[in-house]
Amino acid sequence: MEFTIRAATLEDCKDISRMILSRCELAEYEKVSDQVKIAQRDLEQDGFSKNPFFHGIIAEVPEHLKSKEGHTKVGYSLYFYTYSSWKGRAVYMEDLYVMPEFRGKCIGKALMSKVSQLGLAAGCTQLNFTVLDWNKSSLDFYLKLGCWDVTSDLGYHCMRCEGDVLEHLAQGDL
Amino acid sequence: MEFTIRAATLEDCKDISRMILSRCELAEYEKVSDQVKIAQRDLEQDGFSKNPFFHGIIAEVPEHLKSKEGHTKVGYSLYFYTYSSWKGRAVYMEDLYVMPEFRGKCIGKALMSKVSQLGLAAGCTQLNFTVLDWNKSSLDFYLKLGCWDVTSDLGYHCMRCEGDVLEHLAQGDL
Repeated sequence: MEFTIRAATLEDCKDISRMILSRCELAEYEKVSDQVKIAQRDLEQDGFSKNPFFHGIIAEVPEHLKSKEGHTKVGYSLYFYTYSSWKGRAVYMEDLYVMPEFRGKCIGKALMSKVSQLGLAAGCTQLNFTVLDWNKSSLDFYLKLGCWDVTSDLGYHCMRCEGDVLEHLAQGDL
Repeated sequence: MEFTIRAATLEDCKDISRMILSRCELAEYEKVSDQVKIAQRDLEQDGFSKNPFFHGIIAEVPEHLKSKEGHTKVGYSLYFYTYSSWKGRAVYMEDLYVMPEFRGKCIGKALMSKVSQLGLAAGCTQLNFTVLDWNKSSLDFYLKLGCWDVTSDLGYHCMRCEGDVLEHLAQGDL
């Protein structure tokens, strides 16, 4: 299928926001659909001001291949640069999404390939991301590509501090 | 114990590098001591040039409390800002380290508190980090603080792509 991958701009935030919400289809499956707190305005502010918190790329199809609802922006990835004190520069792929009617056309792989290119160009030696363990089709997709499961193989657990606990920790109350 | 927490500067990279290597004591336990590829020069370049890949804070004791080997910089944390497409701005604590002879004096908690403060000040709603599952004492420390285990509770697995696989992916060969 004919498509292009390009850097996201401020004008893409509306579509990125739409696709993040579309992932609620997935999110409902994950039972966390009420967890999406990010709107178009947050994306504009956090990704396209000085010192952005993330970068984005967009998969776009030509007008004649637009979706049933008239969309030409049919996939996206958000990524940012991170650091390992052992391995150095790394790139983290926060989201990789392709609209259901455009799947199976290698758009996801092309988006991931672009994030890898950008990471390598920035001197990164790793591409990191997370997958939910019940999401077998995604897990299989990534394992088949040659990615490895750091949690299964080395025992890494993702830990989080938020809400009141984070406030108390910051205040030195814990 | 008397100590201060302050932002790391270029001049601290030598000590941060020393402490990263000291963590090899831990790393040997992890059987990955040969994995440390980052030297002082990398830290200087990656953390203290334009668009740094990480930020750092240092725990320092006064001269009269210096370590047996004469060190006054006795702990550090490396952190960077990340993004969740559901929750927005987040801060990731890559390293939290205190030299063994200075442990049990709340220096670790003070470093973590500072990272939390900096994260909240930057508009972050989450502090994220990883812990190895066999590292029960660390895991207990964080759980007692009120942090939660995203891998155990939601099934998040850390995934990685590196080396030849990353190169091939970037070239679209996979």
